[in-house]
Amino acid sequence: MEPAPPPHSPWGLSALVAASQVLGLSLLATTGAWLGRYRGGVAWHSPLQFNAHPLCMVLGMVFLQADALLVYRVLRREAKRSTKALHALLHGLALLFALVGIVAVFESHRAKGIPDMYSLHSWCGMAAFLLYLLQWLLGCGFFLFPGASFSLRGRYKPLHIFFGIALFALSIGTCLLGITEMLLFNISDSYSSFVPEGVLANTLGVLLVAFGLVVGYVLTRDDWKRPQLAEEMALSMDFKTLTEGDSPLSSSH
Amino acid sequence: MEPAPPPHSPWGLSALVAASQVLGLSLLATTGAWLGRYRGGVAWHSPLQFNAHPLCMVLGMVFLQADALLVYRVLRREAKRSTKALHALLHGLALLFALVGIVAVFESHRAKGIPDMYSLHSWCGMAAFLLYLLQWLLGCGFFLFPGASFSLRGRYKPLHIFFGIALFALSIGTCLLGITEMLLFNISDSYSSFVPEGVLANTLGVLLVAFGLVVGYVLTRDDWKRPQLAEEMALSMDFKTLTEGDSPLSSSH
Repeated sequence: MEPAPPPHSPWGLSALVAASQVLGLSLLATTGAWLGRYRGGVAWHSPLQFNAHPLCMVLGMVFLQADALLVYRVLRREAKRSTKALHALLHGLALLFALVGIVAVFESHRAKGIPDMYSLHSWCGMAAFLLYLLQWLLGCGFFLFPGASFSLRGRYKPLHIFFGIALFALSIGTCLLGITEMLLFNISDSYSSFVPEGVLANTLGVLLVAFGLVVGYVLTRDDWKRPQLAEEMALSMDFKTLTEGDSPLSSSH
Repeated sequence: MEPAPPPHSPWGLSALVAASQVLGLSLLATTGAWLGRYRGGVAWHSPLQFNAHPLCMVLGMVFLQADALLVYRVLRREAKRSTKALHALLHGLALLFALVGIVAVFESHRAKGIPDMYSLHSWCGMAAFLLYLLQWLLGCGFFLFPGASFSLRGRYKPLHIFFGIALFALSIGTCLLGITEMLLFNISDSYSSFVPEGVLANTLGVLLVAFGLVVGYVLTRDDWKRPQLAEEMALSMDFKTLTEGDSPLSSSH
């Protein structure tokens, strides 16, 4: 058997991952600039508590979620087990920030007497958060803790990947809705005259779309998928043989 | 050589394509109900001209765009050439409806003295439309008219597929932004008390997300890709041999 070629990162992959990180940090900086310059900044026990919401959501549901998705593309020589643990850890961290962001908006609504969950943004956002939490629990259950059989994991994996990318897209779409709501609540009179706050917030929206495109491309390009390391291939064949009674030869088809 | 198995549609594929069409028609019905019941209906030379915008965009940039993407999954036994022509035709029709929808909003803005292109919805929408038009022109140039070499087509195809799905997602996201804008322009005072118009429009948003998920799943599931028919496989091998000097055997890897 020929030894597998060393799983180097292709040049284009490294360039786009770098671009994604620059875009991701620009997202955070632009969100911070919007809140700091035009919305009075962020503070927890104050009328500014609402502003923690956009910051936490962009950090958790966009930046950290994306980086959790990207670990399999970036860490190509690490053992699968540690890559998987990092993937789960980053998604867990993303969920924590998102939870803080959700608490911020509910507490701020209560303080100001504003009803909850009436807007399309809130419907999409709550759906994205709950499905993301469910996906994380299922992912931990199937892939991280022992128990699920090889064939069950194999059947769930394509769904896990599809919903991972779909929920990332839904998270970005929900941020765009949040930007539009926040602008129309705060500057509906001046938005149409291209005031700097409107242009800055629109630019944040465009950056979010660009971030989604770059991350989406890196995740879905076939020849950038993480190659199985030689020892994983041997292990999975042994495992398949044990659990399904296939011969290693027939399972390599 | 064994004959290729007949390319039957898998059961799950047929069920999800049917579900997508039910969802797609519900989208159109819900948009029509919203405009008819709460926004005075649709008419061209009147103050109701604006209402042609959401209807045309949902029909063109969502329903027809999706069906154009789905033809390769649905028509599995047709000759590739006619499937491709239908794909281009449906996208062309989608672009026409979108153009009418864009004219409607610009003319209605002019009549009411509202500035153009200041909102995030308009930025995302114009980007989606122009990139969709570009993608259509590139698609026709590379795949429909003769001229592009086999290897050039092969290199462009994954980009065409990625941007096809990404622009579909952006189109849906832009519709969600449009719904939010329209609600906050028209019923900002009553939206938070769960008035029927708000709930109906939010439901339209949820249907759009569901439509995007179903179509996205059908398009990206690996084992539902259109199988190459036997004669196409032979043809593409001959063609590859001619253009690249590979032997049919080595190109089948």
